[in-house]
Amino acid sequence: MYDVETIRADFPILGREVNGKPLVYLDNGASAQKPRVVIDAVTRAYAEEYSNVHRGLHYLSNLATEKYESVRGTVARFLNAGSEEEIVLNSGTTEGINMVAYGWAMPRMEAGDEIILSVMEHHANIVPWHFLRERQGVKITWVDVDTTGALDPQKVLDAVTDRTKLIAVTHLSNVLGTKVDVKAICDGAREKGVAVLVDGSQGAVHIPVDVQDIGCDFYAVTGHKLYGPSGSGAIYVRRERLREMRPFMGGGDMIREVTKESVVYNDPPMKFEAGTPGIVQTIGLGVALDYMMGLGMESIAAHEDSLRDYARDRLTGLNWLNLQGTTPDKAAIFSFTLEGAAHAHDISTILDKKGVAVRAGQHCTGPLMEHLGVSATCRASFGLYNTTREVDVLVEALELAHELFA
Amino acid sequence: MYDVETIRADFPILGREVNGKPLVYLDNGASAQKPRVVIDAVTRAYAEEYSNVHRGLHYLSNLATEKYESVRGTVARFLNAGSEEEIVLNSGTTEGINMVAYGWAMPRMEAGDEIILSVMEHHANIVPWHFLRERQGVKITWVDVDTTGALDPQKVLDAVTDRTKLIAVTHLSNVLGTKVDVKAICDGAREKGVAVLVDGSQGAVHIPVDVQDIGCDFYAVTGHKLYGPSGSGAIYVRRERLREMRPFMGGGDMIREVTKESVVYNDPPMKFEAGTPGIVQTIGLGVALDYMMGLGMESIAAHEDSLRDYARDRLTGLNWLNLQGTTPDKAAIFSFTLEGAAHAHDISTILDKKGVAVRAGQHCTGPLMEHLGVSATCRASFGLYNTTREVDVLVEALELAHELFA
Repeated sequence: MYDVETIRADFPILGREVNGKPLVYLDNGASAQKPRVVIDAVTRAYAEEYSNVHRGLHYLSNLATEKYESVRGTVARFLNAGSEEEIVLNSGTTEGINMVAYGWAMPRMEAGDEIILSVMEHHANIVPWHFLRERQGVKITWVDVDTTGALDPQKVLDAVTDRTKLIAVTHLSNVLGTKVDVKAICDGAREKGVAVLVDGSQGAVHIPVDVQDIGCDFYAVTGHKLYGPSGSGAIYVRRERLREMRPFMGGGDMIREVTKESVVYNDPPMKFEAGTPGIVQTIGLGVALDYMMGLGMESIAAHEDSLRDYARDRLTGLNWLNLQGTTPDKAAIFSFTLEGAAHAHDISTILDKKGVAVRAGQHCTGPLMEHLGVSATCRASFGLYNTTREVDVLVEALELAHELFA
Repeated sequence: MYDVETIRADFPILGREVNGKPLVYLDNGASAQKPRVVIDAVTRAYAEEYSNVHRGLHYLSNLATEKYESVRGTVARFLNAGSEEEIVLNSGTTEGINMVAYGWAMPRMEAGDEIILSVMEHHANIVPWHFLRERQGVKITWVDVDTTGALDPQKVLDAVTDRTKLIAVTHLSNVLGTKVDVKAICDGAREKGVAVLVDGSQGAVHIPVDVQDIGCDFYAVTGHKLYGPSGSGAIYVRRERLREMRPFMGGGDMIREVTKESVVYNDPPMKFEAGTPGIVQTIGLGVALDYMMGLGMESIAAHEDSLRDYARDRLTGLNWLNLQGTTPDKAAIFSFTLEGAAHAHDISTILDKKGVAVRAGQHCTGPLMEHLGVSATCRASFGLYNTTREVDVLVEALELAHELFA
């Protein structure tokens, strides 16, 4: 039984007020709040069990190493990876995708080779590929979404040519809430011998993920959106791709031997983890994923689906609100503009006065904004602890904004 | 007045026992423990004030952004940078040096160009340059240290040729404790038009740093050694070098505009900070640096100098101990081997039984180990909270190890 009020009690910050009103936190797409178990794990790690990892033999170092390394298995379970050796721990999706760009794509792509992106990608899944365009003449092919915000897998596959080396696509749009059938894309891409990177920043938060079933080559997640600490994350890399990839960052831990003349690299996944890692935030990420799995990924998804249905009903009732993204099975992420003069920033400022935290701007999706023909939107993005009552507060606040700007 | 017992009470972990003995934490070179103010700041940030930064307009986002961004000024003060715009926030020295390797060195170095390294560099300041050697034929020139572990600045400058583009050198050896006269190196290098990167991972912990006085182009620090959270850090980049550098990681925040065809990058330092940063650990880093500056960097250095003198006296009294690094003004970092058969790992295991945490191994310095002709050492590295009593415990434990292996 998914009791949202019990769950809310796990998150200390949800009890606070903002501007004299109870906090209604609807900025989960940007970053999620943390349950007490995660905060306590971080505190305990620093106050009682802290040391560097991997290189020590003393008690605290062994303890920290054990806790840190166990997270690899937790992430593997969370994503249903075949082996924890396919999990590279890092600071988040941005680092994960850059690792693929620098370590896998850069050395194997030549001028004229192609990367396919959907128009609703986040900048984290655009800019690293622009680097390859600027620096070595790689071509980016864009695939549009339809008027509902849906991405047709067949359109993605139709864009493949004999120069295509990679499809990089989000699992779930951070603006539209669109879920992408990445399994269909991977099935078709495999037949054509094209690798697929899935940006799971949002997807892994809202959809139970099975990377073996999806059949992707890379699946990147970011810990701070998964109710874990800032600066934590991981990327699943299929074993064959791991073998093909050269190191990204150089430093400690990722080597077996360094001499003046040469380096012998460590085996994957360590080969891709340079220097002292984000020890404590990674330990916290493990606790966050256990917390989510404890609630049940299917249960979280079901709760969020009911929130989505309720919010969609209420928001579509506001006939002066332009909603972006209308696929039926979308996630509970709503981007909108108000008819009339109000800028998205002004709306969010008014909502904030009512305690409602939403985001306003481009949401790191320049090409999507261009495609939608808007300069910015407001976005309310829901998480596992949000309630229908909070949808009501959002709607009341929007009505106030509408009155003010009408 | 520097009261070490009062200071120790600020660090919760120092009150704990290990293997039934009071913890004697002498593994500060690997990572330092955290004062309560840092742990509390991290806890508070998650429990009361958490949000993503930069992109929001709501209350919590503004609050988190203000706290996060203020750290840039704190780091600038800590390093005495001329402007906080010369401070790039990151996850630590490894990321900082890799940013310089990928963003500054890679696009401007050709086959046959040279980088000068000292033989006592940490792998974090070696492997990124080996990448350039492997990938684009850059030559690495090594400068040895003398038998005391000293690095003669003139020897470094004599190694400069008309192909030299960069000198990358540590401020303080993590194995020998040697302090390097990086100012003399920078003075000479500037005359020759060669840029200098200083690895300040250890230096900034033990030496009051003034990057303007040193005159370096890059100065990298890592937060977890500075009594701050894991996964935090920063690098000072002189304004001219910032202008020359291309972006390292691509993603959110580091852009001004992204379209399907192009990217307009943000101004430095944001240009070099991609994606959601390590928000909370950076906030914690700011508190850690304030804590250190509150004690006074000169006072910390004076305390550690007295620890060094006491430890040196006691350790040199053990005539079966081979001490590496004997420069008079070295930091309180002691690497040693025992005469006879005992492996460094065995020694550290025995010390651990007495509650003494030291590190054993290569300390991420393969070329230095080769130079010293040892396969591994034990290392006791002191911090601002260590005491002469702890030196005594270390010596007693070493005597026990000596007896066992004699």
